[in-house]
Amino acid sequence: MTESRIADPTLAGPGMNKIEWALQFMPVLQSFDEEHFPSKPLKGLRIATCLHLEAKTACLLASLKRLGAEVSAAGSNPLSTQDDVCAALVRLGVRVYSRRGMTDREYCENLSLALDIRPHIVIDDGADMVAMLHTSRRELLHDVRGGAEETTTGVNRLRAMEMEGKLAFAVIAVNDAASKYLFDNRYGTGQSVMDGLMRTTNSLVAGKNVVVVGYGWCGRGVAMRASGMGAKVIVVEVDPHRAFEAVMDGHAVMSMAEAASVGDIFLTLTGNRQVIRKEHFDVMKDGSILGNAGHFDVEISRPDLESLAAEVREVRPNIRTYVTPDGRRIHLLAEGRLVNLAAADGHPIEIMDLSFSIQLLSAIYVAQNRLDAGLHAVPPEIDRAVVTRKLQTMGVKLEELTPEQKNYMNSWQE
Amino acid sequence: MTESRIADPTLAGPGMNKIEWALQFMPVLQSFDEEHFPSKPLKGLRIATCLHLEAKTACLLASLKRLGAEVSAAGSNPLSTQDDVCAALVRLGVRVYSRRGMTDREYCENLSLALDIRPHIVIDDGADMVAMLHTSRRELLHDVRGGAEETTTGVNRLRAMEMEGKLAFAVIAVNDAASKYLFDNRYGTGQSVMDGLMRTTNSLVAGKNVVVVGYGWCGRGVAMRASGMGAKVIVVEVDPHRAFEAVMDGHAVMSMAEAASVGDIFLTLTGNRQVIRKEHFDVMKDGSILGNAGHFDVEISRPDLESLAAEVREVRPNIRTYVTPDGRRIHLLAEGRLVNLAAADGHPIEIMDLSFSIQLLSAIYVAQNRLDAGLHAVPPEIDRAVVTRKLQTMGVKLEELTPEQKNYMNSWQE
Amino acid sequence: MTESRIADPTLAGPGMNKIEWALQFMPVLQSFDEEHFPSKPLKGLRIATCLHLEAKTACLLASLKRLGAEVSAAGSNPLSTQDDVCAALVRLGVRVYSRRGMTDREYCENLSLALDIRPHIVIDDGADMVAMLHTSRRELLHDVRGGAEETTTGVNRLRAMEMEGKLAFAVIAVNDAASKYLFDNRYGTGQSVMDGLMRTTNSLVAGKNVVVVGYGWCGRGVAMRASGMGAKVIVVEVDPHRAFEAVMDGHAVMSMAEAASVGDIFLTLTGNRQVIRKEHFDVMKDGSILGNAGHFDVEISRPDLESLAAEVREVRPNIRTYVTPDGRRIHLLAEGRLVNLAAADGHPIEIMDLSFSIQLLSAIYVAQNRLDAGLHAVPPEIDRAVVTRKLQTMGVKLEELTPEQKNYMNSWQE
Amino acid sequence: MTESRIADPTLAGPGMNKIEWALQFMPVLQSFDEEHFPSKPLKGLRIATCLHLEAKTACLLASLKRLGAEVSAAGSNPLSTQDDVCAALVRLGVRVYSRRGMTDREYCENLSLALDIRPHIVIDDGADMVAMLHTSRRELLHDVRGGAEETTTGVNRLRAMEMEGKLAFAVIAVNDAASKYLFDNRYGTGQSVMDGLMRTTNSLVAGKNVVVVGYGWCGRGVAMRASGMGAKVIVVEVDPHRAFEAVMDGHAVMSMAEAASVGDIFLTLTGNRQVIRKEHFDVMKDGSILGNAGHFDVEISRPDLESLAAEVREVRPNIRTYVTPDGRRIHLLAEGRLVNLAAADGHPIEIMDLSFSIQLLSAIYVAQNRLDAGLHAVPPEIDRAVVTRKLQTMGVKLEELTPEQKNYMNSWQE
Repeated sequence: MTESRIADPTLAGPGMNKIEWALQFMPVLQSFDEEHFPSKPLKGLRIATCLHLEAKTACLLASLKRLGAEVSAAGSNPLSTQDDVCAALVRLGVRVYSRRGMTDREYCENLSLALDIRPHIVIDDGADMVAMLHTSRRELLHDVRGGAEETTTGVNRLRAMEMEGKLAFAVIAVNDAASKYLFDNRYGTGQSVMDGLMRTTNSLVAGKNVVVVGYGWCGRGVAMRASGMGAKVIVVEVDPHRAFEAVMDGHAVMSMAEAASVGDIFLTLTGNRQVIRKEHFDVMKDGSILGNAGHFDVEISRPDLESLAAEVREVRPNIRTYVTPDGRRIHLLAEGRLVNLAAADGHPIEIMDLSFSIQLLSAIYVAQNRLDAGLHAVPPEIDRAVVTRKLQTMGVKLEELTPEQKNYMNSWQE
Repeated sequence: MTESRIADPTLAGPGMNKIEWALQFMPVLQSFDEEHFPSKPLKGLRIATCLHLEAKTACLLASLKRLGAEVSAAGSNPLSTQDDVCAALVRLGVRVYSRRGMTDREYCENLSLALDIRPHIVIDDGADMVAMLHTSRRELLHDVRGGAEETTTGVNRLRAMEMEGKLAFAVIAVNDAASKYLFDNRYGTGQSVMDGLMRTTNSLVAGKNVVVVGYGWCGRGVAMRASGMGAKVIVVEVDPHRAFEAVMDGHAVMSMAEAASVGDIFLTLTGNRQVIRKEHFDVMKDGSILGNAGHFDVEISRPDLESLAAEVREVRPNIRTYVTPDGRRIHLLAEGRLVNLAAADGHPIEIMDLSFSIQLLSAIYVAQNRLDAGLHAVPPEIDRAVVTRKLQTMGVKLEELTPEQKNYMNSWQE
Repeated sequence: MTESRIADPTLAGPGMNKIEWALQFMPVLQSFDEEHFPSKPLKGLRIATCLHLEAKTACLLASLKRLGAEVSAAGSNPLSTQDDVCAALVRLGVRVYSRRGMTDREYCENLSLALDIRPHIVIDDGADMVAMLHTSRRELLHDVRGGAEETTTGVNRLRAMEMEGKLAFAVIAVNDAASKYLFDNRYGTGQSVMDGLMRTTNSLVAGKNVVVVGYGWCGRGVAMRASGMGAKVIVVEVDPHRAFEAVMDGHAVMSMAEAASVGDIFLTLTGNRQVIRKEHFDVMKDGSILGNAGHFDVEISRPDLESLAAEVREVRPNIRTYVTPDGRRIHLLAEGRLVNLAAADGHPIEIMDLSFSIQLLSAIYVAQNRLDAGLHAVPPEIDRAVVTRKLQTMGVKLEELTPEQKNYMNSWQE
Repeated sequence: MTESRIADPTLAGPGMNKIEWALQFMPVLQSFDEEHFPSKPLKGLRIATCLHLEAKTACLLASLKRLGAEVSAAGSNPLSTQDDVCAALVRLGVRVYSRRGMTDREYCENLSLALDIRPHIVIDDGADMVAMLHTSRRELLHDVRGGAEETTTGVNRLRAMEMEGKLAFAVIAVNDAASKYLFDNRYGTGQSVMDGLMRTTNSLVAGKNVVVVGYGWCGRGVAMRASGMGAKVIVVEVDPHRAFEAVMDGHAVMSMAEAASVGDIFLTLTGNRQVIRKEHFDVMKDGSILGNAGHFDVEISRPDLESLAAEVREVRPNIRTYVTPDGRRIHLLAEGRLVNLAAADGHPIEIMDLSFSIQLLSAIYVAQNRLDAGLHAVPPEIDRAVVTRKLQTMGVKLEELTPEQKNYMNSWQE
């Protein structure tokens, strides 16, 4: 198989620095790595991964390798790939297939190249690799013992596959572990999206009308942090419970049609497509800023923007301005791709320490157990072990129940 | 049966005023009441209830009656009973058995008196009435078609009964409806506990170390609002996921042993017993203030307080001070009973509009369906209908999915 | 002179309890009291006061007396007077002239009765007593050595007097001390207004549009805490810097005309008159709640409310409902008087510990110095001493500058 | 004189893009520029400036030029200079003397080169240019009609000069305008410091102990936004009023000695030197992150760090790690220079729109008035005009006083 396909192997130095920096703030991953290192639980296994190739992911990939696996990696998004980290990973012995700015065709080729490792285990981010295994690369299904998926979008797709009876192996729904979605999706996305927005635009958040489309865990996190930076948050939701929760959290709630003409900054986190489209662009204010933090670049309709624009300009790195015939400027960040990954460094390191520890332990779990085809929850003991170790590394003490209290909680007669 | 047993029937006037005030802010309950009024779905049914007898609950009881039921009511807590509201309820034709400050013995007698109505349906708050039906009043079980329970504590007890195979009829777990626990437990408790604390003590919240014991939905709400009033919040938790969530929300997290000597104000919301006890009182600062918002008055150990006190004084309404032999003053609010109900007016009206609408529709559901014994979830269509109507009364517009978007959400191949 | 004129001397017991409770949370006042007690610096002086007669003020009055003064007290507001505290004060040897609910005529008579003590020092709250001394009781001016005033409104009036050349003695502008206005006006008003609003209405704050009229220190405090309870805050301001500050703090800013039809709850803190009036009532929503926290009851036009109402009802303690001819219900809290004092217990105790310590030390300062007529700032050493002692009682450590650092701060050449 | 001295004139293209981007979000500056353009009020004047040479400052410099002035510019900080913006400014006709990373010697040379223009007006940021005019370049004082200074640090230095009787011309204290310090220092610094911290470290803010040293306007802003991102804030202060304000805002307050061993992230904003030094580094935790946002790079003692380090490493752009002999890693951001300028793009554009409008109008004011030597306040009408226009561009409506209300505010007898 092709050894690697990356932009520039000479960038390994700065890439290694980035990885070392990240590793320092990932004590949980380090500790599980050290705990399992003596037994090399992944020895003899081939693992294909499709992930955002930046420093924190590199720490996970390095651990998989240290614990015995052969590892290949494709980038899960053209704009989230960091070329120096790819070079460093190659130096660490991982087979890497990605470059920042790759075309859609290259993206598919790279997925396929990474699969050439003939994986026993697949670690996916968005379910594109799993989907390819079930379509154009079905010949590899035979070797696959299981996988893990870490996004809401990916889990939704896998659930759809399972409902259609198509899912051919076990996949651990890493996204649905409490140690993952409660923190990564909310506090991780909250900070990283604000970071991407602020560093890309240098625009003030305080006093702005920030429209958050989608009030799932990710949207909640972004709304909370936008509000923490002084914004007036407007939430757009389809689900009534979430909508009322947004009201109770102090946000305004509107339909997209209403919000479109009021918002200054729009951030999409729905997992759906075309949530902002022509009818909305038509009424937006001059200077509106649009960013997406959903998995795919389909939430803000780029085709609609392109067809309505009298002029398109690249005005700053990661900002493209669409000028409407009536002279309004609509600014799209990072081509509508994940603004926190394409225009920043992704989630804060400490958050990914949890998520990737779940990934690592899930991979070991798949390696050590024979699982039926279908979606599987992360075993509760893994889910609990990860967050418990996190608290230990922070020196945070839990309260413990007395025997009388345990008893009381299980009785009804007192 | 005894018609009613209340403190003073002449208080009906102010009680009616309170009910009228509350009703004005309960448009959802009003709207479901009006919708069902023509068909009188509760006609011919007898409903026994055990609830906090204050103005909002009275609106629910009045609706049950308007829709055709015969209704009896016992107070679910001696200190949450408002005597003027009881008098008004009697005037409205409800049989009421309660008075503020009743003894434990009266409390049990009143439960039993309310059950004398031989209920078809039981609406409970804490599961004491259901428990009595399964113990000393088993002869009434035959008539019971089902019930509803609205607290976390009650649902936990019923779950324990069910696990032991003891639960003899269907109970709707109203507490577990999203329209209930997401809002009532969090935002309702958040405001009402702060209200009770502030009005009772006139003490400053800003800058205080407020220890919140339990970071479930209720604890989260209290922590959020205490922080919103300027407190530094310290969370005590046994569950690691909740503990880390508290950390991410900006709170300190400690064991109770650590928090005891640091806190200025302690609020318990665990559903467990003896969460603050001798070993903690021993190290508390002079002037510490203790309040409970868990269902039962067992979270703060009153026996331990009494045994360690050199002196006990009533210093303000709803404040009892325990002076330790070394001269420290520890102030217990409302005898350790629900501080938001015993020392304030309970949850804000608008929140109970949701909870009691769920109760009303659940009662109708029990009336119209034959359900197996055991705990039942609130039917999703009821859960959704209530919050949807709430949004309508507020003029809040939901976004709607296009057919293409619905389709996209169910596919995996794009 | 008349010894006292209060509602009911038998209420002294509960009044003493309230005072004892408050004193416990006023370590700063206690400590200055103890420090000065041996020298009795107020010996031989007569002090007339016009203050909100509740427990914290009583602690100040008791200290004035302990330090040697003869003290008389009139209530500064009919609805803020607590009759049990008045009774306790009488027992403590203070001459008290007030009762809750007194008429305007009684109010004036009481001021005059309190002045009969022929004061050397006047401690005022709103400047009514000082104004009376300059109009109908000018014969007493001769004895007056100085005074102190603790409200923004009072200081503004005194400034107007001074500009007209009418102010006949020295008055310390206690309100303008940093130890006072930074804390009392902001955090004190913030908490006490929310307390008064919540306990009086039992209405939900979260998700409501709360209109805060006036973004001075008091308004900022209320906006901050309303937001902390989950409200969406709308600020109405005449000053552009304050208005933009409100924008940056995440609030909406509107004219009163715009806000009137959007708000759910209206709180006035301007020090001006008629800030909410007919044109605004005309467009308010059904169920609007109005409260004032400015010094005088002129901010919300009660005459306009009365003239437009088809019906007026007392619906709860401290709530009067005006029903418009088109059926909208507008609810006025506490007759438009200070909602935090008339419908709650005023500012939190710990905040008044600072304000009243400034008052006490200012009174001693007036006693010990001969000051020119006119407004005087609180001496900076007093201002600093009070907040410094507060930090000491809390165990909070300040950083200290090194000699090199002090030097650096005064140089320009480095 | 030397025409310009910059890093690379070919970078003008991206520099122009940055300027155009910024200008779009500076409607106030644009509007004053357009208003004054016809009269060219700066015609014939030479203006020397020492400023952070990035896009927003470039908008000010371009306006000065458009309104008729000849303009020279030195960079006020080696790490805040953006080479592409310098190139663009040269293309726009400004004489520029700076490059990112210049040495201390170059910095001084560049100041001197910029002064070669023989300025009538000096616009300074930190007072180094004014200081040079009073020391090594006194021969130029004759032509100088006045200046403007926009930082707290600079105004403090000028005040020291004035006290010593050394300040030879008029300087407008732009920093002290309400339109400047209320917003730029607080909300500007608040956002930009968080931006610089997050983008440089990719480290999580939520749950961290963030030590904010200095609770002036800048420190308040940073504390507010750090808290908004989920941090637990610890404030270090020397002033008791500020310290207690921090307590009331919900922060912990400690001495630096206490905070040093507790903090995870340290941010200095004092205007003083050596506020974090050897004794503090000695007890810091492994992984501590240090950033400065005070004007000069003297707040965190780099000499102390260097002398204690067993090893020094550049680990990421703008991060230098000092490894102590006992293995602890202490990370210094941007060499201890302004982290928001050296490691990010400085304050948000919209904030600088206010500050630079004040600068522009102050320059015109100096041009049109003969002012005495010494520090001058920004004329209130300018201060008010700027924020008023800002509100107009946002469509925010102020409330207006009625004649009766104006009258009431100036009377004392009602």
